[in-house]
Amino acid sequence: MKSNSIPKIEIIAVGTELLSPHFQDTNSLYLIERLNDLGLEANFKTIVGDDMDDLKLAIHNSLARARVVFITGGLGPTKDDRTREALASVLKRKLLFRADVFEQIHKRFQRRRIPMPSVNKKQAYVIEGSELLDNQKGTAPGIWMETPSNIIAVLPGPPTELKPMFDVYMWPRLLKFLRIHSVRKTLKITGLTESKVESLIQNDYPKDKDLRLSTLARPGQIEIHLLCQSQINSAHAKKKMKALSSTLLFKLKENVFSTSGEELEEIVGNMLRQRQETVAAAESCTGGYLGHRLTNIPGSSDYFLLSVVAYQNDQKSRLLRVPQDLLYKSGAVSSEVACAMANGIREISSVDYGLAITGIAGPGGSTADKPVGLVYTALAGKNHTEVKRNLFLGDREIIKFQSSQKALDMLRRHLLQSL
Amino acid sequence: MKSNSIPKIEIIAVGTELLSPHFQDTNSLYLIERLNDLGLEANFKTIVGDDMDDLKLAIHNSLARARVVFITGGLGPTKDDRTREALASVLKRKLLFRADVFEQIHKRFQRRRIPMPSVNKKQAYVIEGSELLDNQKGTAPGIWMETPSNIIAVLPGPPTELKPMFDVYMWPRLLKFLRIHSVRKTLKITGLTESKVESLIQNDYPKDKDLRLSTLARPGQIEIHLLCQSQINSAHAKKKMKALSSTLLFKLKENVFSTSGEELEEIVGNMLRQRQETVAAAESCTGGYLGHRLTNIPGSSDYFLLSVVAYQNDQKSRLLRVPQDLLYKSGAVSSEVACAMANGIREISSVDYGLAITGIAGPGGSTADKPVGLVYTALAGKNHTEVKRNLFLGDREIIKFQSSQKALDMLRRHLLQSL
Repeated sequence: MKSNSIPKIEIIAVGTELLSPHFQDTNSLYLIERLNDLGLEANFKTIVGDDMDDLKLAIHNSLARARVVFITGGLGPTKDDRTREALASVLKRKLLFRADVFEQIHKRFQRRRIPMPSVNKKQAYVIEGSELLDNQKGTAPGIWMETPSNIIAVLPGPPTELKPMFDVYMWPRLLKFLRIHSVRKTLKITGLTESKVESLIQNDYPKDKDLRLSTLARPGQIEIHLLCQSQINSAHAKKKMKALSSTLLFKLKENVFSTSGEELEEIVGNMLRQRQETVAAAESCTGGYLGHRLTNIPGSSDYFLLSVVAYQNDQKSRLLRVPQDLLYKSGAVSSEVACAMANGIREISSVDYGLAITGIAGPGGSTADKPVGLVYTALAGKNHTEVKRNLFLGDREIIKFQSSQKALDMLRRHLLQSL
Repeated sequence: MKSNSIPKIEIIAVGTELLSPHFQDTNSLYLIERLNDLGLEANFKTIVGDDMDDLKLAIHNSLARARVVFITGGLGPTKDDRTREALASVLKRKLLFRADVFEQIHKRFQRRRIPMPSVNKKQAYVIEGSELLDNQKGTAPGIWMETPSNIIAVLPGPPTELKPMFDVYMWPRLLKFLRIHSVRKTLKITGLTESKVESLIQNDYPKDKDLRLSTLARPGQIEIHLLCQSQINSAHAKKKMKALSSTLLFKLKENVFSTSGEELEEIVGNMLRQRQETVAAAESCTGGYLGHRLTNIPGSSDYFLLSVVAYQNDQKSRLLRVPQDLLYKSGAVSSEVACAMANGIREISSVDYGLAITGIAGPGGSTADKPVGLVYTALAGKNHTEVKRNLFLGDREIIKFQSSQKALDMLRRHLLQSL
């Protein structure tokens, strides 16, 4: 097989649930991103269910129209996991029992002190002439096969298993197709609307066809994805990327919080760690989501000490030291109470910064003058208290996200100013 | 064409952006939901870009393996909108200019007082033998074609154009396939591994081809999706579904927490509301995620009062009343401290139930005898304290999910027992 031509690539996602109105294949997004890094593109995606005939047809068509075929899912132990059998059947190859693979799966269960269910035995059957790829995170090994006409790579469906397996085993084997040097960058923005971002950068859309810019917007966060490719070398690609991203950063300024993939909670965490400062949260309508986000970052115990989720007035006054008359006079959803919560949590936990969120996430709980989406976010530091009144649109989940985003962003902007 | 057999159905989404890492086809979710309402299923989905050869290949394969093919997107006026040309080419039919269609498109621009761009002329070309479907919301008409072997329905990509066009023109034409009455049910399970679920129900996989069972597993939660169809009437489908789900429930017992789509936090919330009881959480490694999940449910303030996320020993002893010598002797990640946290939060908030989570979410923080994934979950009620030692696999996010799932499930099982 020649490796210096651009191969046609197809990704097949297997699973009847992916043909329901409720589930989407997301693994292909990761695979495509990694393929793009090699200068490769996917030509087709197919989604097919567990039905054996359909599955065989899909694999058959893909092998005919694409040279490299990734198949994800259907490697599990259950009766409706049929990828292995279907692929063997299309290729007219045998499935062979491998005692060493069986032993590995067995050991995995032993380590977890769980008896191995008999159904897992089928994961030890291997397609003749295929190479097994070790799965560090689950029981189903991956498969790599090269036939005269195709490269076939089979990956388990769970993303936590698929991603490392692709990166460790498949990426190096795909390097032979590397023909374009790619650089990627994502600018993450908060504090601006999508149309505001659009109007700021409208004259900076690249005309060079090796540069690609796409915008992805959701409430509270806008991402600008940049891809730069060069046939010369990666330094050339990087140089063009730098020119483009510098232009965009000049226009968007401090509204860009991340240029290397980090989420806002990570950026804020890094800033705190660098300054050896600490934060605590007082939450109401977010219910713990701010603490959850802050602690999604490994090592966050360096700077995150405490969150008190006080869902009722009583807890706000007892635990967060919000004066009862303030709650009575201004109401729990007010700028006064938000400030008192931020100062309260700062005092009781002796941190440098207290963040507070109080609002109405809906759908219930609104009044004539306090609609769903009204959220006060407050920041308390040494000799510094500030509060924002926000009116967020969206459902409960979106309002919770935007609230936590705004609180984190208030802290980020404050830290930027006081460098 | 006979219409009394179940047709194979495929949905093709056309657009190069749908082969990027950032965008997903979502139109198919809507089409599948509406097809399901007719008792129909999609067998395949294909995503293909604007490349003419790829597009023709995809359409060619689909027409061969499916009887009804929906194609969405690629009907616009630009150079990379090629669905019409590709379909005509595959079917070996001419594209004919239709003056009346041209006039309609022209009028549309006139109404909006915009000059008609010359590129829009191509939208007035019609595949020989096809029927045009009016687009009230855009310039690209839809297409309906019946050939001896296929029904082909082409829809514009924008959801606001696609949805009404499907509902008004295609739904009535698909009614002739309505011959099956469908019922759906999802059993959600926690507390068992996928393999354990599989071994419990392995003899209950339906042999009746009108019943379908598919399993979707992630750490901490397994879903069994059931579909039951009847050619007689919907009462018959319901009766068969009831028999199947009863069998499964008998095998899986109280490990099934939901049969109507609810998540665990909603089930636990409903149980608490019904009993007019309350809960509070003391969290460490979950960082607020338990509170976040509980408060994702509208109206959760009826039963959720407080969560204290104490990320440090100092906060655990000061706010949650965990004795300092216990933290010193057993360590923060221990069954003793988990119990003390659960009892502590219960006392300070005067709730009926205190839930506590303490563990190591990783990747750092482990010791020789306390590995990543070691999590203690505790429940404290009146005269009742229980604690579980868990060893979860996965990354930080998955360990946080499983920890919150286990805590919620402990409360659920306790409430079930004490009905």
